[in-house]
Amino acid sequence: MNELRRDPVSGRWSIIIHDELQTDKLLVNVRKRRTSGKQHEPSCPFCKGNEHLTPEPIHVENLNGNPEDWHVRVIPDKYPVLRVEGDLNNRGHGMYDILNGIGAHEIVVETPHHSTHLADFADDHLARVFSVYQNRIRDLKSDLRFRYVMVYKNYGEATGPAVGHSYSYVIATPVTPPRVKQELINAAEHFRMKERCLFCDILQQEISDGARVVEETEHFLAYIPFASRAPLETWIMPKRHETFFERSDNVAELASLFKRTVRGIQQLLYDPNYVMVIHTGPNTSFGHRRGYWKTLEQDYHWHIEIIPQLRGFTSFELVSGIRANFLPPEKGAALLRQEAATAGRS
Amino acid sequence: MNELRRDPVSGRWSIIIHDELQTDKLLVNVRKRRTSGKQHEPSCPFCKGNEHLTPEPIHVENLNGNPEDWHVRVIPDKYPVLRVEGDLNNRGHGMYDILNGIGAHEIVVETPHHSTHLADFADDHLARVFSVYQNRIRDLKSDLRFRYVMVYKNYGEATGPAVGHSYSYVIATPVTPPRVKQELINAAEHFRMKERCLFCDILQQEISDGARVVEETEHFLAYIPFASRAPLETWIMPKRHETFFERSDNVAELASLFKRTVRGIQQLLYDPNYVMVIHTGPNTSFGHRRGYWKTLEQDYHWHIEIIPQLRGFTSFELVSGIRANFLPPEKGAALLRQEAATAGRS
Repeated sequence: MNELRRDPVSGRWSIIIHDELQTDKLLVNVRKRRTSGKQHEPSCPFCKGNEHLTPEPIHVENLNGNPEDWHVRVIPDKYPVLRVEGDLNNRGHGMYDILNGIGAHEIVVETPHHSTHLADFADDHLARVFSVYQNRIRDLKSDLRFRYVMVYKNYGEATGPAVGHSYSYVIATPVTPPRVKQELINAAEHFRMKERCLFCDILQQEISDGARVVEETEHFLAYIPFASRAPLETWIMPKRHETFFERSDNVAELASLFKRTVRGIQQLLYDPNYVMVIHTGPNTSFGHRRGYWKTLEQDYHWHIEIIPQLRGFTSFELVSGIRANFLPPEKGAALLRQEAATAGRS
Repeated sequence: MNELRRDPVSGRWSIIIHDELQTDKLLVNVRKRRTSGKQHEPSCPFCKGNEHLTPEPIHVENLNGNPEDWHVRVIPDKYPVLRVEGDLNNRGHGMYDILNGIGAHEIVVETPHHSTHLADFADDHLARVFSVYQNRIRDLKSDLRFRYVMVYKNYGEATGPAVGHSYSYVIATPVTPPRVKQELINAAEHFRMKERCLFCDILQQEISDGARVVEETEHFLAYIPFASRAPLETWIMPKRHETFFERSDNVAELASLFKRTVRGIQQLLYDPNYVMVIHTGPNTSFGHRRGYWKTLEQDYHWHIEIIPQLRGFTSFELVSGIRANFLPPEKGAALLRQEAATAGRS
C-alpha cells in the first residue's frame, strides 16, 4: 500500500510509492556517467585564463596570495533578474503589494578547472567553497534591503559555453522565499506548542529510528527525510542547535560529509542532476523581530537539502503540490549506507 | 525596473520582468499549431469503438439515451498512484504523520473523437464537460475519506497512444493539497481582518482597474492576476460570491468564456501547453468545521486557473518558490483583448 507522508518542516505531503518493480527500474537506469574531460575550455567564461569574459569579481580566493592563482571566484551574474542598485520602494497598488526588483545575483565559480566537479574536489578545496558561501551570506546580510540570502547549486543544469564547469549561486532577495517562509512558520508554531526546536526533535527521532540515516559524524547528521520528495533526497543538519549556516565552525567536516553523500547518490542513480540548497535563518540585521521571527534563534535550525532531479513534474504534482516518490526513504538510506560500506572496502 | 509582486491568494511572489525585447521574443516564437488530424486512432484507448481498452466507466454522457453514442466518458485511471479501496488508517510514526495512499484517480474523456480539442468543442458540448466535472466532484465528496477533489487538465502533456485525445483528470485526496490549503488559510485570514471575501475584493479592484481584465460576462470575470506566474496566466472567477464550483448554475456561460480565453492564449502564444485547474472549496460533508474552515462559505471563492507552460522551472524558481514572468499582466491582458477584438471582426 502506498503512503501519504507529511513533512513537518515544509508542511508538504509526499506519496511514498511501495513498488519493488518501480524501485528496481529506477536503479537499473541506463548508466550515464559524466565525462571527466578537459581542464580548460577556450570559450568557457569560468575557466582560468578567461577572467576577462566575466564582470569584475566580488570575491576571489587565492592560493599563496597570488591573485592569478585563484581557486574560488565570485562574480555578479551578467543578466540578473534582480538588480542590486536602487531602492525597494515597498508600496501598495490598491490591495496588492509591490516592490522594486532589487536583489543580488552572484555566481560562485567553484574551481578554475573546467571539468572537475564538486564531488571530486579535494576536501580542503570544498571546505573553502563552503566558507566562501558563508562569507557571501554574511556580507549580503549587512545590506538591510535583503531579507534572505539563498545559496544553491543545480548540478547538470548549465547551458552555453559554461557547460561542465562547476558553479553555484548566491541570491539575496528583499522578501523571504515562500519555501523558506513556510519552514519558519512551521518551526515557530512547533516551538510555540512544545518550547522545543522542530529540527532538534527530528534529529532525535532520526538518530533513534536509524532507518533513514545515511551517515552520522561528530557534528552532523545526513538522513533521508521521512516524506522526501525524490529518490535519495538527503538533508544534512548540524546535531547541535544552530540557526545560521554562516556562523557554523565545522565547514571542513560538513564539506567532506557532503561530498561522500553526493558521491553515494551519483553512484546509485547514475550521476543524476541534483539541486543543492542551503536553508539558513533569515537576515536579522535590521534589528526588530516580530511575529514568526520572535523566537527565531530558538526555533530555526539551518540545514542543507540535496534533491536529485530525475524527471519533470507531473501535472498532478504541479497543481496539487503533492510529490510522488518511487524510492521509500528507508530503502534509499539502506542503499546509501551499503554503497558507502562498499566504497570503504574498495 | 523589474518588480516583485505578491499574489494575495497564494502568498507567492512573482518577479514581473519589464523587458520589451524578451516580451517580443516570447510573442514571435516559432509558430507550431497543433495538427487537427483524424477523428479515430485505432490504438487510442479513449477513441469511440475502443471502449474495451479501458476499465468499466464510472459515468457516461449519452446522446439520445443511446449508450453507444456517448460524448463524455469518465473512467478510472488504470495505474492510479492513490487507490480507492481501503481505510485511511491515519496514524503517527513518532512525530511524523502518515496515511494510507487512499484516493480516487479518474480520467474524463472529453470527446469520442481523437483530434478534437477542448477549445474547438461546440459550446454545448464543453458545457456538458463542465457539468460532468460538477457531477464527479459532488459524487466524490460524498466519500467522507476525501478532503478535497481537484479537477485539472494538462493540454499537450499526453504520451502513448492517447496522444492528441482531449481528456482531463478528477483526483480526490485524503488531505487538502498544499496549493489549495495555502489559499484557504490566506482567505480565512483576510476574512478575519476585514470580514470580507478576499476574492470579492480582488474582483472589485480588477473590474475597477480594468488593466488586467481579459473579458467580463454577466456572471464571470476573466483576468490576469497581478502577480501571475506565467505569460497570459488567466483566472476565471464568478462575480457573485460562490464557494463551490460544483454548485454553480452558469456552466454554459462559463464554458463559452473558458473557450474564448483558451483560444486567445493559443493564438498569442502559438498553441502552448497549458494547465487548467479548478479550485473549489474543500469537502465539508463530514460536518465539523474548525480552524481555518470555520468561515469557509464566507471567505472562499471558487475559480479556474489557466497557466500556460512555456518552459521548465529554473533552479531559482524550484528552490525559492518565486517565479519569473516575462510578460507583464497588464500587457498580456491588453494583447488578449486586442486578439478577441480581431477575432470578432473576422
